[in-house]
Amino acid sequence: MFIGAQVSLYPMTSDFETVITTGLEALSPYEDDLRIKTDDMSTLMVGAPGPLFDAIRDLFAAAARRPEHVTMHVTLSRGCPGEPDDPNCRCEVLDRAQDQSLADRQALAARAVTDAPVLGVGIDVQFSLYVMGAGGHMDEIYGCIDFLTSSGTFLTSKNFCTRLRGDAGAVFETLRQAFLRFGPAEGHVTIDMTASANSPSLG
Amino acid sequence: MFIGAQVSLYPMTSDFETVITTGLEALSPYEDDLRIKTDDMSTLMVGAPGPLFDAIRDLFAAAARRPEHVTMHVTLSRGCPGEPDDPNCRCEVLDRAQDQSLADRQALAARAVTDAPVLGVGIDVQFSLYVMGAGGHMDEIYGCIDFLTSSGTFLTSKNFCTRLRGDAGAVFETLRQAFLRFGPAEGHVTIDMTASANSPSLG
Repeated sequence: MFIGAQVSLYPMTSDFETVITTGLEALSPYEDDLRIKTDDMSTLMVGAPGPLFDAIRDLFAAAARRPEHVTMHVTLSRGCPGEPDDPNCRCEVLDRAQDQSLADRQALAARAVTDAPVLGVGIDVQFSLYVMGAGGHMDEIYGCIDFLTSSGTFLTSKNFCTRLRGDAGAVFETLRQAFLRFGPAEGHVTIDMTASANSPSLG
Repeated sequence: MFIGAQVSLYPMTSDFETVITTGLEALSPYEDDLRIKTDDMSTLMVGAPGPLFDAIRDLFAAAARRPEHVTMHVTLSRGCPGEPDDPNCRCEVLDRAQDQSLADRQALAARAVTDAPVLGVGIDVQFSLYVMGAGGHMDEIYGCIDFLTSSGTFLTSKNFCTRLRGDAGAVFETLRQAFLRFGPAEGHVTIDMTASANSPSLG
């Protein structure tokens, strides 16, 4: 299994480089657990979903604690058939999911969101979950939507994506659970995700 | 068939609202052909791939002609099983693709990129193409990668995505061809795409 993300932070300020630097400093606790590589368009992070989602959350929360409007785009992937197996990406949640019913996985996902830490940073997210290859993928998608609508972070459905809103801790836990608990445990699942904070459009 | 996109423009300047307004003005020629609706996170555009990709291209090119660093994220979707049929999205390229071999579709895609208009704006793009549901989706993905590497806009492969670079005209034509010519004509295909212009990281 190969798990990772391409992450881009977009501060809407002329001093964007300072905000990006602030965000990247929040990644230092994760440098032992993740392979991290930055180029001119995005930062690649490869590793298990525990540190991976925590790192992405802390990166965005650090930038969002500043006053400027900031957004982030993340492309998440697990199980892509074109990528090599990486022991660093091993994940117990996925290992166990193979033997769990959809209802069990929904209950575990809901509990994880309830138990998420509170970071004290309110954020907006919209995202799309894609389950590739296997038949019956819409059952998993509808099962995930049921989880999302009762997660406490659900805001609304839009064309092609779902809006979440809440504390960064609960919102990123909702994303991690959607990514891990739905779709085949050994399958190829991706998320296309955008986060936003301090938007002037929200008054 | 339902075809559309969620589009977000991110200018890295404190005067971001002016850049966004400049970009949105470039959409006015397309208001008859597309359904366009903006909220605080993105602009929904629904319609046929002809005006849809032209509108997204012109939006980004208008913003990129200014001096500021600007990026754009787009979630593109066709054939999502959860969306209603919309006659406004009808597309001859998709109608004909049902009877065309992979080799024929690759040749038609290459010619469309060669014939693309030159806009005089250099841009960088990275994107992921997702083909949902059907078996054998990796054949279509590898066929698309063959087209991309010889398209004239290919820069490099990255984990989870492909980098393109070139004039906005050729780059967005490459994206449109990837979206339309690969994966089942009646299937669910999506693109997760990020564009960048005037990045200081490129010196």
